[in-house]
Amino acid sequence: MSGWVAVAGLGPGDDALITPEVQQTLDQATDIVGYFPYVARVAPRKGLTLHASDNRVELDRAAHALQMAAEGRRVVVVSSGDPGVFAMASALFEALGSGPEEWLDLDIRILPGITAMLAAAARLGAPLGHDFCAINLSDNLKPWDLIEHRLRMAGRGGFAMAFYNPRSKSRPRQFGRALDILREECGGDTLISFARNVSKPDETLNTVTLSAATEDMADMRTVVIVGNAQTTRLGRFVYTPRSAP
Amino acid sequence: MSGWVAVAGLGPGDDALITPEVQQTLDQATDIVGYFPYVARVAPRKGLTLHASDNRVELDRAAHALQMAAEGRRVVVVSSGDPGVFAMASALFEALGSGPEEWLDLDIRILPGITAMLAAAARLGAPLGHDFCAINLSDNLKPWDLIEHRLRMAGRGGFAMAFYNPRSKSRPRQFGRALDILREECGGDTLISFARNVSKPDETLNTVTLSAATEDMADMRTVVIVGNAQTTRLGRFVYTPRSAP
Repeated sequence: MSGWVAVAGLGPGDDALITPEVQQTLDQATDIVGYFPYVARVAPRKGLTLHASDNRVELDRAAHALQMAAEGRRVVVVSSGDPGVFAMASALFEALGSGPEEWLDLDIRILPGITAMLAAAARLGAPLGHDFCAINLSDNLKPWDLIEHRLRMAGRGGFAMAFYNPRSKSRPRQFGRALDILREECGGDTLISFARNVSKPDETLNTVTLSAATEDMADMRTVVIVGNAQTTRLGRFVYTPRSAP
Repeated sequence: MSGWVAVAGLGPGDDALITPEVQQTLDQATDIVGYFPYVARVAPRKGLTLHASDNRVELDRAAHALQMAAEGRRVVVVSSGDPGVFAMASALFEALGSGPEEWLDLDIRILPGITAMLAAAARLGAPLGHDFCAINLSDNLKPWDLIEHRLRMAGRGGFAMAFYNPRSKSRPRQFGRALDILREECGGDTLISFARNVSKPDETLNTVTLSAATEDMADMRTVVIVGNAQTTRLGRFVYTPRSAP
């Protein structure tokens, strides 16, 4: 039987958000590859080998998955959310481009999942119901100046925004700088929502104005959504209208 | 039994991309509300009433769903893709804001789905693997000038982009204007992908440079994805690296 590799999105945490396509592919796999907490979401069974690895070894993990597929194994690389949004799909192609040419003939599939910003938006109401940007606030793989520039362009374009990786222990201060830029570009009355551990038992949601936002409202488990000038509260919901003036 | 309304995303077309959460909610419904082709995707059964309506009556449809929920019915408003991305969730909240105050106490849930751009990105490889914008190119609910401004801001920010509703019979020319702006802002070598009827039997994928792109490559069933300056082809795939210089 010939091998394959699939990069699959497990969604934000609740198994009811895993697509049947992903579940069926997991059921056919011989090997699961990924970051510890995502591999831990796959039920062990006979004939299935779990290869859990630490964060920040994405390229090694991707090359290992491709190598096993080349050897005839059926490999699923698991990502949280959607694999194409700040997750493992791009890393897999980077490893593919650095590997032996015959890897290009492998059966490679990317299986979409519910990405964190859309799960968060659904819990909040519809804050991304108009044009929006998705920005990874981590400067591990790009200069911080570029992030600041993108925040300004997004603000001047009147986009709503969703931020991944807003803040970590090693980057405690940059999110405060991002909030300053957003207040300058969008005004202090614009709504900002902090959605932490969406779809998990300890989910929390918090919406304030940019004026009232502070950097400690976010951590690595938080998706941050900034509205546009029309974004409004309605009862317990936050939504962005479909129309713009 | 008390009523509720859920706005549910059916994904791009393949039933294997419908989440278990959405399927379970459809199974509990008494009424399905939505645009004809989406309602047609729900299997009829005893005790379930299907309310299919035409396009462009989103607010009437949303108010009808809320009214039925207030009367104790269990209503699912069906959207394609994700309901929060250029779909029915914002329309529901607009109708909620215009309706009787007691509607605010209704049990309202938004159930995420696989949105078209992420299904398309997965089929192409990983073209949205870095910061990106999602823009609705229809000027039905916003001025065309604002769309042009957003294209320029997105281009200057070095964002990848996904376009919904790029072109229709009533708007045959605007997409050509959008391509002109993109060539100006991003350069002619940037990759653009046209993904039509993603996940359906007649799916087509086409990637060219902006120089070679023409407006007739898109229609209302096409999601268009524009890469950033780093986006590259690799065999049959298109991907955007995680890093930026």
